[in-house]
Amino acid sequence: LISKLPNVGTTIFTTMSQLAADTGALNLSQGFPDFDGPDALREALARHVMAGHNQYAPMTGLPALREQVAVKVAGLYGRKVDAATEVTITPGATQAIFCAIQAVIRPGDEVIVFDPCYDSYEPSVQLAGGVCIHQQLSLPDFHIDWQRLADAITPRTRMIVLNTPHNPSGALIDADELERLAALIRERDIYLLSDEVYEHLVFDGREHASVLRHDELYQRAFVVSSFGKTYHVTGWKTGYVVAPPALSSELRKVHQYVSFTGVTPLQWALADFMAEHPEHISELPAFYQAKRDLFCDLLAGSRFSFTRATGTYFQLADYSAIRPDLDDVAMAEWLTREHGVASIPISVFYQSPPADLRLVRFCFAKREETLRQAAERLCAI
Amino acid sequence: LISKLPNVGTTIFTTMSQLAADTGALNLSQGFPDFDGPDALREALARHVMAGHNQYAPMTGLPALREQVAVKVAGLYGRKVDAATEVTITPGATQAIFCAIQAVIRPGDEVIVFDPCYDSYEPSVQLAGGVCIHQQLSLPDFHIDWQRLADAITPRTRMIVLNTPHNPSGALIDADELERLAALIRERDIYLLSDEVYEHLVFDGREHASVLRHDELYQRAFVVSSFGKTYHVTGWKTGYVVAPPALSSELRKVHQYVSFTGVTPLQWALADFMAEHPEHISELPAFYQAKRDLFCDLLAGSRFSFTRATGTYFQLADYSAIRPDLDDVAMAEWLTREHGVASIPISVFYQSPPADLRLVRFCFAKREETLRQAAERLCAI
Ligand SMILES: CSCCC(=O)C(=O)O
Ligand SMILES: CSCCC(=O)C(=O)O
Repeated sequence: LISKLPNVGTTIFTTMSQLAADTGALNLSQGFPDFDGPDALREALARHVMAGHNQYAPMTGLPALREQVAVKVAGLYGRKVDAATEVTITPGATQAIFCAIQAVIRPGDEVIVFDPCYDSYEPSVQLAGGVCIHQQLSLPDFHIDWQRLADAITPRTRMIVLNTPHNPSGALIDADELERLAALIRERDIYLLSDEVYEHLVFDGREHASVLRHDELYQRAFVVSSFGKTYHVTGWKTGYVVAPPALSSELRKVHQYVSFTGVTPLQWALADFMAEHPEHISELPAFYQAKRDLFCDLLAGSRFSFTRATGTYFQLADYSAIRPDLDDVAMAEWLTREHGVASIPISVFYQSPPADLRLVRFCFAKREETLRQAAERLCAI
Repeated sequence: LISKLPNVGTTIFTTMSQLAADTGALNLSQGFPDFDGPDALREALARHVMAGHNQYAPMTGLPALREQVAVKVAGLYGRKVDAATEVTITPGATQAIFCAIQAVIRPGDEVIVFDPCYDSYEPSVQLAGGVCIHQQLSLPDFHIDWQRLADAITPRTRMIVLNTPHNPSGALIDADELERLAALIRERDIYLLSDEVYEHLVFDGREHASVLRHDELYQRAFVVSSFGKTYHVTGWKTGYVVAPPALSSELRKVHQYVSFTGVTPLQWALADFMAEHPEHISELPAFYQAKRDLFCDLLAGSRFSFTRATGTYFQLADYSAIRPDLDDVAMAEWLTREHGVASIPISVFYQSPPADLRLVRFCFAKREETLRQAAERLCAI
């Protein structure tokens, strides 16, 4: 048996969460909250399960939930999308990404991704027979190098994967950059996959430059988001894709046979909660900004150096002043074992990590007490 | 935009369920119960959601649920499987099938499927770059023609997809047939995908010939089942794959990036329920056999002809005596619109349906009242 994915091992998220569990370390590695989703959301789920909403949902998702997504997209990004033909509910954003790639990528197609990037993009492209072309975001700010991107585009380029707010760096793409992107791909047969799962986690008064705001880009885009991230229930594995009808139609052909549909009672609960608690989304930036600031204020007393994340619930930290002798994988392990705080090394999100990378990623989607304890341990190093 | 799946339309399940909803017909088409899952199972879900089991499960599934699967497999089929390396929980059996195919099928590989077959097999193979070789089951019993199968095997054959109990016919493979299959593929590099989602729905005292009973076949098999079918909660979209460690490892590489993991609280609830209610499974055959018999006894008063299904919760019925002029797609539509009972035409599960096929499929996973009403309408034709 020769592996189709010979380079795939266990994802770093599993590895680090497991090490945290084994060592009893505080788990600031894998991106999930250590607090629960809203009571009203969980109660809605319990209600729908007991009320008998336990059989197949429609293939494209529960109409009420697709409608809520359309309402949100109109309110936040000023785009009117048709819930029937442009919104598809998926069992998680990872699957949304997988299906979007499968829908358009053929053997030999090139897909441009920006390193460091989420580790599912490359195997998803490989399984479609495509090839990832890795472009490094320029350090220290993790921005796209537009000249290098222009040079990387070939006649085989079929897709560009954007991710804003960016995991793991927290960097944001801005509206001007979307303009540049539009100009770059205007005359070409290139699709966009815009991974916006942290769309609501944008700080310091900035705006999320969603591809949904951009008429021209949207026409060739799959825009992906995650109810799990937004509603603090990552274990619910429910996400969605917004795409114009022709692209949604191709996406749905794949989705129909990858999973057929998502979980019914979760979709009912999310639809109810979104309708009844629109304030949840508008309060999110302040909610997570307070956590970022608490963590960063405390970490200022450590030998880590960092610039505050502008988005996501991740904070990068440079450890050059502490253990410059360790690469980031060794550092993450050392921090977990010796200091009781698990993080994610970011070199694993690169095809060829820069040799001098000395950054680990902390997830600050944690209770105040967890963040204080973690910072205390990190300051003691 | 040229479709990667040009032949894929909306699945017949969506089409017929929609038509049933639009016309107010009794929906005996798509395979799901019109009654609810056990109270204790739904209460367990509500409990776990409120108790805070809402973040990511481990990638391979909740250990307690994998363990329950291992216990069940040992008890029913006498096979000791290692829950850690041989059981993987997936977001539905459809996804289990998709991932198993993706794990081993490469461009140009041939996959033998037996028509009529579930409509996800072919697009899943196509997306992996493979080709489905369709073998027709011999009528009227829907059995494998072993000589034709032997002739169909080529050096490019990489997988055979079994489905027992068989959807849509309810036919069963027996232990002797597994022997024949083993002999046929013994010296070859061929994997098995054994779709056993109706494993517990076997009637008249027969035994389910699971590939899990067969040492030699199991070594190259992915055995797929469904909690949704077994526990009357199709909308929970949770299934599993049992496969030897080397195959599970490849399957998991795909699963890790298709979905990463399934829904956490559902897995807790299923694990609890399986541990506390082992009788659920042993009572299933009698539970569904009673429904089959009720429906068939009543249908005996109609002009449909049929042989009772030996497994699954589907009953085929020949309508030659009623409307021989209609093909089965037209017949299913006519039955829905004119007589208020929705069914599934089975020609859509063939690559080239036999011209004289006059069969529709009724799902009898319905309340007694529904079955009585449906039969009454069918008898009035
Ligand atoms: C699917 S586990 C990964 C969660 C996550 O998005 C992250 O930690 O980056
Ligand atoms: C995923 S919808 C199809 C349900 C089913 O298995 C059937 O009706 O055959």
